[in-house]
Amino acid sequence: MVRVGVNGYGTIGKRVALAVLKQEDMSLVGIVKKTPDYAALQARRLGINVYAPTEDDVRKFEDSGVKVGGTLRDLLESVDVIVDATPGGMGEQYRKLYDQFKVKQVFQGGEKPEIAEVSFNSLCNYGEALGRRSARVVSCNTTGLLRIICTLNAHSPVEKVRAVVIRRAADPKEVKRGPVNSIELDPPKAPSHHAKDVKTVIPWVKITTVAVAVPTTLMHVHHVTLKVSKKLAKSDVIAILEAAPRVMLINAERTGITGTAGIVEASRDLRPRYDVPELVVFEDSLNVEDDEISLFQAVHQESIVVPENIDVIRALIPLELDPTKSIEKTDRALELNKKLW
Amino acid sequence: MVRVGVNGYGTIGKRVALAVLKQEDMSLVGIVKKTPDYAALQARRLGINVYAPTEDDVRKFEDSGVKVGGTLRDLLESVDVIVDATPGGMGEQYRKLYDQFKVKQVFQGGEKPEIAEVSFNSLCNYGEALGRRSARVVSCNTTGLLRIICTLNAHSPVEKVRAVVIRRAADPKEVKRGPVNSIELDPPKAPSHHAKDVKTVIPWVKITTVAVAVPTTLMHVHHVTLKVSKKLAKSDVIAILEAAPRVMLINAERTGITGTAGIVEASRDLRPRYDVPELVVFEDSLNVEDDEISLFQAVHQESIVVPENIDVIRALIPLELDPTKSIEKTDRALELNKKLW
Repeated sequence: MVRVGVNGYGTIGKRVALAVLKQEDMSLVGIVKKTPDYAALQARRLGINVYAPTEDDVRKFEDSGVKVGGTLRDLLESVDVIVDATPGGMGEQYRKLYDQFKVKQVFQGGEKPEIAEVSFNSLCNYGEALGRRSARVVSCNTTGLLRIICTLNAHSPVEKVRAVVIRRAADPKEVKRGPVNSIELDPPKAPSHHAKDVKTVIPWVKITTVAVAVPTTLMHVHHVTLKVSKKLAKSDVIAILEAAPRVMLINAERTGITGTAGIVEASRDLRPRYDVPELVVFEDSLNVEDDEISLFQAVHQESIVVPENIDVIRALIPLELDPTKSIEKTDRALELNKKLW
Repeated sequence: MVRVGVNGYGTIGKRVALAVLKQEDMSLVGIVKKTPDYAALQARRLGINVYAPTEDDVRKFEDSGVKVGGTLRDLLESVDVIVDATPGGMGEQYRKLYDQFKVKQVFQGGEKPEIAEVSFNSLCNYGEALGRRSARVVSCNTTGLLRIICTLNAHSPVEKVRAVVIRRAADPKEVKRGPVNSIELDPPKAPSHHAKDVKTVIPWVKITTVAVAVPTTLMHVHHVTLKVSKKLAKSDVIAILEAAPRVMLINAERTGITGTAGIVEASRDLRPRYDVPELVVFEDSLNVEDDEISLFQAVHQESIVVPENIDVIRALIPLELDPTKSIEKTDRALELNKKLW
């Protein structure tokens, strides 16, 4: 059993912690939280050991009656791997402490690529993370792009990718973010950072990306065009995506799901927190013209990186040498069945 | 003086009517409105003659104390051109009546292309509308696409166009439309109708379009990629767009305008109803790679087709044979100066 700690219990941290709990080959030693709020109480209710960053924070927790196991240092003493899910940029500040305790380290996409030995996606470069000290799981949009690129690339080498990223304005809980009524160029200057970020995992790909932010909280949507070197029929592409892990095909005509609200509504009836860690590809939007495949896909920003955070732990230890086997274990434990019906 | 009537006084109708009032070579005989609401009172306040569709409607107006000049038939007897700005699909029902009165006819993009002898855009095919009985001014998104295509095509033949259309959910007054919190594939099946609609004006172009609707009311945004046959430098493209009519270049870095809210906020300080009939191209987003030009552009759905509605009247009569001269007259009268500062 690999002993795992999670530093940060926000949107990503809590999902990774709960995902670790479900793995047969991992144990969750505890999580680190800064504030004794409702989420700390929920963690305790689930029997999760809560730690605080410093002694001062420990006292805050004690004052509000939330039992804590100690400080981050106490946690680091008893884990093999720490998953850093602190707010973007803070991982860099914690890195030295992690080094000091000689624990393996998983960072998130909000950190600069240089923070870790390798930027990671399970479908693209699992092997490169084997036995490393540290890895960075790239962000949600980048993970979505990598899933489609590496899935298709395994069948027909991808020569060029263009993507228009239509970002959700804010996560449901981020009440201070916007826009509320605008389509914002994010950034105004092309290309967006996503192209560069994809290349941290697969440097060989030729890719351009642009992005806007729009007033919605549920999911991102991408329009992706992939030029492939070996022509595929539309039916080939559908068969490939149906067989691929972590890609969910949705047919709008058959299901009545025509956008992100429909995906989330269907998921609310089936899944905790309506999480959709699969990349959702809209089958109706799939178009093949000569050597170009284009499609709309949707990315659930809160959960898509969770399975990758689990796989990367197996790679770093290394607990499993074969990416396919790790992916299977993770997806079985998380009940990712690629459908919402 | 060409005598113009406008049937319908909604989003497009009122703007076209007010634009006609500003032209030196046109007179507005009157507008047709179905309901005696605040907009009817505003029209009266501006000294515009209001007509009602039928005798029954006339009585409704009289009952609520709004003076009317008669019915649609009365109006049709005294105009050379009728601009139909009734809700999409209703123009088809009115067409026979217009024919009966032997008036020239302008329809909007909500009607099927077959309704008129020609689908129209000032920058693309003004000449084809000269002396015709009827023309259809294509819709806002199609007009935006045609503006950029025909502007660039005049300098370097456009071989292929791809566009991702990010549509506003509803106009500001359409309180019953959505989505409120979703990115909706609109339509789920690629391509969207915009490609076909562009071809009603320039059948020679190779174009694919896809579209989503997002929860905002201000403007549409397009990401457009144009493959051109003669390589242009980025500076060439900027010079072409700066010199072109009805295209406004906005530099985000210099102006602080980074999206549709910024455009509208700047326009609110300068222009009635914050109308922006120019196609807005975001200069920072402009990218030239080999023979491909890509950019983000914004379309103010409520006003972009207004100048085209004026030009098409001059073409139908025909009052002006040279598109450049008509465009100049229209834009001077409407004070389209291509900037918001």
